[in-house]
Amino acid sequence: MRAFNFGAGPCTLPLAVLEEAQEEFVDFGGAGMSLIEMSHRSAAYEAVHTEAIARVRKLFLVPDDFEVLFLQGGASLQFAMVPLNLLTGSAPAGYVVSGSWGKRAIGDAAHHGDAYAAWNGEAEGFARMPSSAELDIRPDSRYLHVTSNETIHGIRMTEWPDTDVRLVGDMSSDYLSRPIPWARFDVVYGGAQKNLGPAGLTIVFVRRSVLSGTNRNLGAYLRWDVHADSNSLYNTPPVFAIYMMGKTLQWIEQQGGLAAMESAAEARAGLIYDVIDSSDGFYRSPVEVGSRSLMNVVFRMPDEESEGRFLAAATEQDLVGLKGHRSVGGMRASLYNAMPMSGVEALASLMGSFG
Amino acid sequence: MRAFNFGAGPCTLPLAVLEEAQEEFVDFGGAGMSLIEMSHRSAAYEAVHTEAIARVRKLFLVPDDFEVLFLQGGASLQFAMVPLNLLTGSAPAGYVVSGSWGKRAIGDAAHHGDAYAAWNGEAEGFARMPSSAELDIRPDSRYLHVTSNETIHGIRMTEWPDTDVRLVGDMSSDYLSRPIPWARFDVVYGGAQKNLGPAGLTIVFVRRSVLSGTNRNLGAYLRWDVHADSNSLYNTPPVFAIYMMGKTLQWIEQQGGLAAMESAAEARAGLIYDVIDSSDGFYRSPVEVGSRSLMNVVFRMPDEESEGRFLAAATEQDLVGLKGHRSVGGMRASLYNAMPMSGVEALASLMGSFG
Repeated sequence: MRAFNFGAGPCTLPLAVLEEAQEEFVDFGGAGMSLIEMSHRSAAYEAVHTEAIARVRKLFLVPDDFEVLFLQGGASLQFAMVPLNLLTGSAPAGYVVSGSWGKRAIGDAAHHGDAYAAWNGEAEGFARMPSSAELDIRPDSRYLHVTSNETIHGIRMTEWPDTDVRLVGDMSSDYLSRPIPWARFDVVYGGAQKNLGPAGLTIVFVRRSVLSGTNRNLGAYLRWDVHADSNSLYNTPPVFAIYMMGKTLQWIEQQGGLAAMESAAEARAGLIYDVIDSSDGFYRSPVEVGSRSLMNVVFRMPDEESEGRFLAAATEQDLVGLKGHRSVGGMRASLYNAMPMSGVEALASLMGSFG
Repeated sequence: MRAFNFGAGPCTLPLAVLEEAQEEFVDFGGAGMSLIEMSHRSAAYEAVHTEAIARVRKLFLVPDDFEVLFLQGGASLQFAMVPLNLLTGSAPAGYVVSGSWGKRAIGDAAHHGDAYAAWNGEAEGFARMPSSAELDIRPDSRYLHVTSNETIHGIRMTEWPDTDVRLVGDMSSDYLSRPIPWARFDVVYGGAQKNLGPAGLTIVFVRRSVLSGTNRNLGAYLRWDVHADSNSLYNTPPVFAIYMMGKTLQWIEQQGGLAAMESAAEARAGLIYDVIDSSDGFYRSPVEVGSRSLMNVVFRMPDEESEGRFLAAATEQDLVGLKGHRSVGGMRASLYNAMPMSGVEALASLMGSFG
C-alpha cells in the first residue's frame, strides 16, 4: 500500500526514485560503502554533486550569469542571509508581506538592515497577492522581496511587480513547477523539500554581478560569494539530500521537464478547484480567484465538524496530510510534482461524494 | 565486499544501521511512505525526533541544565553563530588557534566581535595542543574557544584550559568518543558526520542560563534561543540525518555507550601508534606524543613515493580514505566509532608488512 501524501513539505517523492535509492543505499556503485559514508571530496560524490548542479541549471533554465548554490538551513536561514549579504549600504529593502512566510522574511530582515513593507495583506487575511499598482516601493530600495507562493495561505503571485527595483524571491514551493522570470531577479532561493527532494537542502540562485558587491564582513558560511567560489563545497554539504534531489531531477527530466511539470500542476489544481467551484458553496476557497496557488489548494467546509469527518474519511482511503496549517485551520491539499494524477482524482472523488 | 573506510568525514557507519535503514526506506513503519516524505509535524517523525534528542542526552551524559539543539550548516555556521549569539557586549573572546579548524573559527569570529588568539600553534606546524600555562587569556573575556580535536593535524586536547573564563568548544570529531567536561563549558557544538551519522546535522549544546543572555537582534535561524524554544522544530529539520543519527546512537548504546566507545577508541588508535613507534622511524608521527588524536592518526613515511605506493596497496585491500588532508599531505587514518577493530588490524598488518 502506498499512501497519497498531500503534505505541504516534506512531501511526496516519486516511488521510482525511492526504490532506486533503496537499492543502492548500502553499497553505492560497488564502492563497498554507502554514499552517505563517502568523503565529499571523493570522485564518486563529486560526480553526484556536479551532476545535480548541472541538472538544476538545465531544468530551471538558469541563465549563465547566475550562480547555483547548495546550502543548508532552509529558506529560514536565507531570511537572514539575504539582508546580511545585500544590505551593505544605507539603502532600504522593500518586502511584500503576502503571508506567513513574507512576514517571517521581513521580521528577520529588520534585524540586519532597513526593511519596510511595500504592501501588507494581513488585514485582509492574506487572501490574495497585490497588484503592481498597490505596491509602495521606495525608489532607492536595494531590492524588493517577494514570496512567489505562500504555502500556508494557498496564494501565489502571477503578476510580477512592475518596478525598476531588483527582485529577490523566496520560491520554495514553486520550484520547478513554473518558469522563473530570471531577468527580473537578482536572487531566488528556496528549500528543496517540496517539489525536488527531502529536507536539508536549500538552493540559492544569485546573479554573478551581484556577488561582486555582497558583504564580505561576515562569517564564511553566511557569505554567498564563499559558497560560489567553492562550488558549494566550502564545508561538508548535505550529501544525501543533494543525491536524492539529483535523482528526483532526473525523474522530472524523464517526465518532460519544467513544461511538463507546469501543465501537470495546472491539471492537478484545476481538478480540485473545479470540485470546489461546482459544490454550491459546500467547499469554499478563502482565496481570491486570481491568486489561487497551484501548489497548495486551501479549502474550507461548512463547519469544523464536517472538516473533521472529511479528514477521517480521507485517512481511511490513504489520502493523508490534508489538514490545513495549524495557524489557519481547514484543509490544504499540496500538489507537488511527484503527486500522481490518480491521487488527485481520488481526492476529487472523495470530495464529490462527501457531505 | 565491504570496504574499511578511514575517511575523516563523512565517514564509516555501522553496517547494521545502514541495512536497517535500507529495509525501511520506502515504507516507514507501514505508513505507505518514506520517512523522508513525512511532515516534520507528523506523529511518526516527532517520535523519531524526540527519541534522537533523548538518546543524545543519555549517551553524552548531558546535564539537565543544557539544551540540545539540532541545526544545519555544520560547525562552519556555528563559527559565526557563536560570536553572534554570545558577543553581545564589548567583552572580547579568546581563541586557541590549534589547527585549521581553530583558525577558521577565529577568522569568522573576528567579523562579529572582538576575537583574539589566546595561543597560536601555526608557527610550530600545529603539532601539539598548548598547556594551560601557555594560554594568554584576558580576564574580561566572554569565553575561550577551543577545538578539542583538530581532524586535519591529528591532535587533541587532553588538558582542558585552567581558567575562570567559560569555555566554548568545537568537538565535532570527538563526539561520543570521550566524555565532555560539562562543568567547564557554556557551549559545545559539532557536526554529526563523524562519530554519529551522515552529513547535514549539527548538534549544539547550550547551557540554559546562557540562553537568557544571548543576542535577540538576529534573524531567527541564527538565534540559539529560538531553536531551544521550539525543540529544534522552528523550521523543517534535516529529517533523514536526524533519523540516521538516532539509529547510530541506538547501535552505540547496544555496544555499551560512551565508556565502550572510549575504550574502543583507545584500542584502535593504540594499535596504529604502536606500529608507528616500533617501526624504527619508517613511519613517523608529526604530532607531539601528548597531543596525539585518537580519532585521526596522522603519519608520514620516508618519502612521497613510498606514501603513494602505500596508498595504492591499501586501496588494493579495500582500506580506503587514508590519504591525508590536501593541505598537509601524508597519511591519515580516521578511526571513528563505527570502524571495526578488524579494519584497524588490517591496516596495522599492511603497515607492518610494507616497506
